[in-house]
Amino acid sequence: MFYHIQSLINPIVEDEPDPSAANALQEGLGGQFGEMRTMMQFLFQSFNFRGDGIPYLDLIQGIGVEEISHVELITKTISRLLDGSPRYQGKKFDTPGKGGEAPLEVGKEAQNPHHFIVGAQGALPVDAAGNPWSGSYVHNHGNLVLDLMDNLVLEATGRTQKCRIYQMSSNKTLRATVSFLIARDEAHQMAFAKALETLGIDWAKALPIPKFDATKYPEVKKLMDAGIHREAYHFRLDSSLMENIFSGSAPTNDGTELVTLKEPKTSYPIPMAPERPEEFAPGLDPEMQKLADALSEFKQKTVKEMTKKAGPDSSKLK
Amino acid sequence: MFYHIQSLINPIVEDEPDPSAANALQEGLGGQFGEMRTMMQFLFQSFNFRGDGIPYLDLIQGIGVEEISHVELITKTISRLLDGSPRYQGKKFDTPGKGGEAPLEVGKEAQNPHHFIVGAQGALPVDAAGNPWSGSYVHNHGNLVLDLMDNLVLEATGRTQKCRIYQMSSNKTLRATVSFLIARDEAHQMAFAKALETLGIDWAKALPIPKFDATKYPEVKKLMDAGIHREAYHFRLDSSLMENIFSGSAPTNDGTELVTLKEPKTSYPIPMAPERPEEFAPGLDPEMQKLADALSEFKQKTVKEMTKKAGPDSSKLK
Amino acid sequence: MFYHIQSLINPIVEDEPDPSAANALQEGLGGQFGEMRTMMQFLFQSFNFRGDGIPYLDLIQGIGVEEISHVELITKTISRLLDGSPRYQGKKFDTPGKGGEAPLEVGKEAQNPHHFIVGAQGALPVDAAGNPWSGSYVHNHGNLVLDLMDNLVLEATGRTQKCRIYQMSSNKTLRATVSFLIARDEAHQMAFAKALETLGIDWAKALPIPKFDATKYPEVKKLMDAGIHREAYHFRLDSSLMENIFSGSAPTNDGTELVTLKEPKTSYPIPMAPERPEEFAPGLDPEMQKLADALSEFKQKTVKEMTKKAGPDSSKLK
Amino acid sequence: MFYHIQSLINPIVEDEPDPSAANALQEGLGGQFGEMRTMMQFLFQSFNFRGDGIPYLDLIQGIGVEEISHVELITKTISRLLDGSPRYQGKKFDTPGKGGEAPLEVGKEAQNPHHFIVGAQGALPVDAAGNPWSGSYVHNHGNLVLDLMDNLVLEATGRTQKCRIYQMSSNKTLRATVSFLIARDEAHQMAFAKALETLGIDWAKALPIPKFDATKYPEVKKLMDAGIHREAYHFRLDSSLMENIFSGSAPTNDGTELVTLKEPKTSYPIPMAPERPEEFAPGLDPEMQKLADALSEFKQKTVKEMTKKAGPDSSKLK
Amino acid sequence: MFYHIQSLINPIVEDEPDPSAANALQEGLGGQFGEMRTMMQFLFQSFNFRGDGIPYLDLIQGIGVEEISHVELITKTISRLLDGSPRYQGKKFDTPGKGGEAPLEVGKEAQNPHHFIVGAQGALPVDAAGNPWSGSYVHNHGNLVLDLMDNLVLEATGRTQKCRIYQMSSNKTLRATVSFLIARDEAHQMAFAKALETLGIDWAKALPIPKFDATKYPEVKKLMDAGIHREAYHFRLDSSLMENIFSGSAPTNDGTELVTLKEPKTSYPIPMAPERPEEFAPGLDPEMQKLADALSEFKQKTVKEMTKKAGPDSSKLK
Amino acid sequence: MFYHIQSLINPIVEDEPDPSAANALQEGLGGQFGEMRTMMQFLFQSFNFRGDGIPYLDLIQGIGVEEISHVELITKTISRLLDGSPRYQGKKFDTPGKGGEAPLEVGKEAQNPHHFIVGAQGALPVDAAGNPWSGSYVHNHGNLVLDLMDNLVLEATGRTQKCRIYQMSSNKTLRATVSFLIARDEAHQMAFAKALETLGIDWAKALPIPKFDATKYPEVKKLMDAGIHREAYHFRLDSSLMENIFSGSAPTNDGTELVTLKEPKTSYPIPMAPERPEEFAPGLDPEMQKLADALSEFKQKTVKEMTKKAGPDSSKLK
Repeated sequence: MFYHIQSLINPIVEDEPDPSAANALQEGLGGQFGEMRTMMQFLFQSFNFRGDGIPYLDLIQGIGVEEISHVELITKTISRLLDGSPRYQGKKFDTPGKGGEAPLEVGKEAQNPHHFIVGAQGALPVDAAGNPWSGSYVHNHGNLVLDLMDNLVLEATGRTQKCRIYQMSSNKTLRATVSFLIARDEAHQMAFAKALETLGIDWAKALPIPKFDATKYPEVKKLMDAGIHREAYHFRLDSSLMENIFSGSAPTNDGTELVTLKEPKTSYPIPMAPERPEEFAPGLDPEMQKLADALSEFKQKTVKEMTKKAGPDSSKLK
Repeated sequence: MFYHIQSLINPIVEDEPDPSAANALQEGLGGQFGEMRTMMQFLFQSFNFRGDGIPYLDLIQGIGVEEISHVELITKTISRLLDGSPRYQGKKFDTPGKGGEAPLEVGKEAQNPHHFIVGAQGALPVDAAGNPWSGSYVHNHGNLVLDLMDNLVLEATGRTQKCRIYQMSSNKTLRATVSFLIARDEAHQMAFAKALETLGIDWAKALPIPKFDATKYPEVKKLMDAGIHREAYHFRLDSSLMENIFSGSAPTNDGTELVTLKEPKTSYPIPMAPERPEEFAPGLDPEMQKLADALSEFKQKTVKEMTKKAGPDSSKLK
Repeated sequence: MFYHIQSLINPIVEDEPDPSAANALQEGLGGQFGEMRTMMQFLFQSFNFRGDGIPYLDLIQGIGVEEISHVELITKTISRLLDGSPRYQGKKFDTPGKGGEAPLEVGKEAQNPHHFIVGAQGALPVDAAGNPWSGSYVHNHGNLVLDLMDNLVLEATGRTQKCRIYQMSSNKTLRATVSFLIARDEAHQMAFAKALETLGIDWAKALPIPKFDATKYPEVKKLMDAGIHREAYHFRLDSSLMENIFSGSAPTNDGTELVTLKEPKTSYPIPMAPERPEEFAPGLDPEMQKLADALSEFKQKTVKEMTKKAGPDSSKLK
Repeated sequence: MFYHIQSLINPIVEDEPDPSAANALQEGLGGQFGEMRTMMQFLFQSFNFRGDGIPYLDLIQGIGVEEISHVELITKTISRLLDGSPRYQGKKFDTPGKGGEAPLEVGKEAQNPHHFIVGAQGALPVDAAGNPWSGSYVHNHGNLVLDLMDNLVLEATGRTQKCRIYQMSSNKTLRATVSFLIARDEAHQMAFAKALETLGIDWAKALPIPKFDATKYPEVKKLMDAGIHREAYHFRLDSSLMENIFSGSAPTNDGTELVTLKEPKTSYPIPMAPERPEEFAPGLDPEMQKLADALSEFKQKTVKEMTKKAGPDSSKLK
Repeated sequence: MFYHIQSLINPIVEDEPDPSAANALQEGLGGQFGEMRTMMQFLFQSFNFRGDGIPYLDLIQGIGVEEISHVELITKTISRLLDGSPRYQGKKFDTPGKGGEAPLEVGKEAQNPHHFIVGAQGALPVDAAGNPWSGSYVHNHGNLVLDLMDNLVLEATGRTQKCRIYQMSSNKTLRATVSFLIARDEAHQMAFAKALETLGIDWAKALPIPKFDATKYPEVKKLMDAGIHREAYHFRLDSSLMENIFSGSAPTNDGTELVTLKEPKTSYPIPMAPERPEEFAPGLDPEMQKLADALSEFKQKTVKEMTKKAGPDSSKLK
Repeated sequence: MFYHIQSLINPIVEDEPDPSAANALQEGLGGQFGEMRTMMQFLFQSFNFRGDGIPYLDLIQGIGVEEISHVELITKTISRLLDGSPRYQGKKFDTPGKGGEAPLEVGKEAQNPHHFIVGAQGALPVDAAGNPWSGSYVHNHGNLVLDLMDNLVLEATGRTQKCRIYQMSSNKTLRATVSFLIARDEAHQMAFAKALETLGIDWAKALPIPKFDATKYPEVKKLMDAGIHREAYHFRLDSSLMENIFSGSAPTNDGTELVTLKEPKTSYPIPMAPERPEEFAPGLDPEMQKLADALSEFKQKTVKEMTKKAGPDSSKLK
């Protein structure tokens, strides 16, 4: 059974909108090697797990749970990169396009016009070429060694693609999320490689993939300095045997050590997304808005509390 | 951010394997109106949510979180319905098919041979006709009224299809899960209908869909008697405004009342799935098994503890 | 602009239900070479038509309009072949499956369980292997000679597949529709081959495809004796130049002559499909039924009139 | 059975070509909520209709027939928006690209290069992101209330997307068609909402979706002033009970009245699309052209007659 | 550039038809981990290869070329397993189904009716659940280490699935081909694992996947005794550096040695497939047959020569 | 069984990179009528061939083998058109994007960002709109006349699309490959049309499609002057009866003659693709590079030899 807190695993950094960067990042969300696949692949593998190798189960499942939070983070990032990109100046209950204006003109030239026609400048479950995510991406062979190797290839591909996306724009909103995923995909490579190490394989100097000095990316360096690329989180409210595998020397054979935690040391507030009248989102007219507001007399108060609770220096729930 | 406990939202009831029933139930998992879609649709809608209508956000997101647990439940059920269906009698480190035997013969006649060739008698992210799940199933229009109505149609279709699957087999493993989903899909119809009621719509006697006396299904009746079809769970470790909407009289206009809880009153143990050597699952040979076992000196102890912790009368984490 | 009459282009013949035959016939509806494709391919070609070759336009479009009526006929046939196949005996407002019965058990063993789970024992826009119809099937190259040749290949494949389906069952409901389509696909081969003949090609003895004596199929012979395989219909309420092409000697070079008519000489009544409570179709409870009935005080009378109007010996609208 | 006249349901207004607008409009044709889906969904629902609720059948089917004319209108609009966009100046029997020129250079930068490579600057059965239309878009649950609600969601989404496309360009060819569809999608929302009203639901002020003052769009205002958004057409050559539902007060509860007609009051001529030699469309060389022309000695005369017959002030067929 | 000889890489062994086994084997042809993918993945990787690591290029490409011959072998096997399955007794120019018979009745109950409707009892480019092969299966990341690991996972999955299919039927036609592929997929695991070994990785006892004693399968044992599972073939008519990698001790670390050859030591005749009149295949009538025969006065002679040339003890072309 | 030489069927001509042209050319590779389809369609038809019409089999199969070399040529061309398009100046073991640079910025604006994110600036098995290639493109009806006509339509469409792509850019790398394919697609039209001519059809002046003077394209003229458009190659190392069909007067009825050869008169060297560090391709770090280099002490020597052997004036293997 699953639980949720209204906080992000990494902060959303402010910058200008950049719809093409948003589209590139879709690959990391709905692509064949994106976070929707890692989430589904690891969850399916853990739900269908056979035998009593609980530490392996807990490792795969714990990473699967983290991936849901990655999907949450990446959708928020895409939404932010798209948000306001047509720079529409209308007010809340105005009619967008009134008098025959064309405030969404930029949308028809976008890399994926669906961001403006089908969604309301939000993330879509598709890749950077506009193909919808497919269940055929999920590999769950049932054979433990094979599943672990498949997962390692998946995380290695994810990191490779994100390193390529990193080079596509210097937009800070994009870079903050992509850099975090580069570090976490490396941690997840460690996890599956370490699990295979317990079955005898020695990775020598082959990992991580791609093999290069990621500390040259300033945003990634900061996360690596904090040890993010060598941590695993089990996100379990009862208990987990993940640490039986994810501890000791890293399979990169570079002298670093692996550390298992319940959850990340910090969590971050979720910025509220503004309404976009030109998309009819959320699209309540004054009459319905009044009805909706009636539901929320404590709304202002509540939102403030939530922001405070999930803030950058928030102490975690026990 | 998401968390997990190793317990099920409804119990797995024991019965004979039934691969055709497992295949029918795939529609409820990976079908166009199955739990993978409800989970993804509600999560995407909540991640892309615009504006400050927090109670609506919390309602949609809370149900989305529950759907992950439904995916967990339904995969376990499918796996159990498939498990042992070829009734292979080999021992752990035997070579299945040795001497030219054909223990998986039943698999080539199965409704979906992928259950035996691609997966190891586990659930797949596909529908009952074998089509992989598609990201195009996820509807997130961005307009609140439209999203709520789309969600209502989705839950109504889910319940209709499950009522049809209920009639396809009297297998108890199948029925336990399907009956639970019939009750919960009704609760979710209540949720979205109630949210639309706050915007003015009166549903008269049109709900739930399909309109019939579900108490004639004995397994469903038991759940309805316990009030499962009028409860919502927010699964939030911080706090939720879901109750602002999900409370008061039900939109069925039949005198029943809606109740919001943090989580279900009970949770249930997850049965361990046996190894299936004929599928090479998990497929460790004696040598690798020894290495894997070395990881788990407290294994027996741990498993016992987990089972105890998540038992049918388990007190929930606070 | 399009118009409709509530009559069929060929009669539905009564026989026992046969869900496997229904599934085979899905190929003729939603398959890559089925009627949904012919309909869409010819309509797209005519809507995108370039230049002033009106007789070619009218030929392609007239056949496209007929294909809509083929889709109508074939969906009705599939629905009829599925109808009652679980032989459920419940009454209108009964709860199907009450007390834990499993009246839809046959549905989980069906060739395509979607016929019982997703649809209510009706036709689906999919092929005989359960794949949904795809827009990529529609070929509209824009080059007239190429489009005509593509259309000829399409009609030849359609006829080949239907000749194979003919051999799959002696069910009369199936055979009546399939035989009609065998005859019409031959007529449409004549149409596109004749259009190419006007551009110089001589087909010698290569047509129709497949080349065999179709009069050996008794149901087809009857239609051929009536000349159905050498007729074209333009279905135009204004006027058409189709006849400029479709007239004179057939491109089979067998001494037969082509005839263009406005519409088929006879049309046939559309049988009403009974409610299926086990599918919750249409699923009105007594209360809603009463509301619905209030709409239709002249219902009985109207239905009788319609049946009479569209009867087997109906004189056509002028 | 279906019939056709060579006229359009709304006029094509002349303006410059705009291939990006053409691509955006593809969403309204081949998108998940476009006209190909409405057409197929309503036709399938009517062909598979169960029970004797003829007014509901006639309502669904009548709208389905209109949608074929919408597909016709929208393909013509896309074709016109693409037509001439590379501004090639070659003559009819010239070799395009002769001497190594590159007259289609603009095509490789187009939003969807298929418009120039696969089609001959005509409409394609795909969406604005280039995904082919899929049969899985068609929802036909078989349960009447559910099908009506699904249809309402479909029409509401269609209108929302078209309101977004309206804001993407001020091109008059695009706007004329999109504005007509905004008005008609509102009328179709009225139809399905009214049908649900007969079963008891009260829509209060929730409709239409999206909720805004569409009269601020000048092109839409003109159509609304003419009442286009409150009319339904049954397009039946025999007779229809559609009016039993579509009459009386509109479910918007704004004092307007619903009116059922046989067909629109006016129909419009179909402009002939010029040949495009750079696409080899239709691609007849002088020799074949001569053969083709021989078929059409009355061609000039006929075309003139047709144009006259289907003109803006044409009196309709009785 | 590619060349061909009309011989098979492994013999077709005679047995009864078995359409369900044919369908299971489709997974090995058109499945996500089947031979069409290995062929395309390795060819794309070699065509897009970057850098001067020629031995790696030659290894990947050589295996890719072999996979084309696997596609050839597996299609022939499927065709043979389907061939004659309806046991139609008609003669060459008879009309199948004459007088209303139903000789293809078995086809409508087949696991995939497309084998009888769409193809003429031949192999299809689809998987065992009827899904068409997709280009998205091809992984070509461009990073050498990643591509090699992906290839290893691919071959390991291929072998796992074929070991499962082996257990599904004792049909000799099926088993001969599947056993050969089990042995070759092991050889290909050796190839990619060895290439990774040159970059430092030590596989310990993890390979091959799945890990079990394959000599217990009598047909596989015979091939292993002949060393088939430790051989690689480069199929190059010029020259290859494949041997630089594929030589020395096997990465299974079991004392076996790897051997690179130009081509397999033996090749096998391709059995001619009989005509199937009930499928209209090839479907020439007497008149066309006469024309076709005129092309082939030396036909009998030629066929005999070919059979002799490619026989089981054929000496290979130099 | 298949063999390979490391040479190209047509030379790669040097010019500037042009990623949009690369994307347009993807249609010729992975499009519905591209070379992957022709290759697979003709191979499947020949592997599933029924009956003893060996000359027809040899004709279809020989062309199928050539198409593999077309896939090879076209992937190399796309790769070359993409190569260096971001003009990254980093050195081999540099970290691309170091210090926060964005050298791949151009990639996020590309027609298909997958060329830069998923592949390493290499060809993909997708079409010009980014849709993955599908097995459903392969038509193998089993009926000989029908298959031949389908093949003719396929080759005619391929040539039409390539003639359109020719007009999209004057880039010499693009034009060299496209012009060769225009000439070869014409030759293949001759092949299938001639095969149908043997069964009686007379094509008059309808071929080739599209019908225009291709000698106006200078690059095509050169190939036509050399007779490339009237040659067929059987690529058989044993022997072939292809010539029984492909000889005598061309079915264009223009006085030209058809000539069958074993293979093209000339073959061309394959240019080595440079490493692209910004794509991490091949991505070996100094340590792994050293290990890899150890494999190849004769590398420089070997590469020189290969280039010499396969040079433009290379004498072919006997």
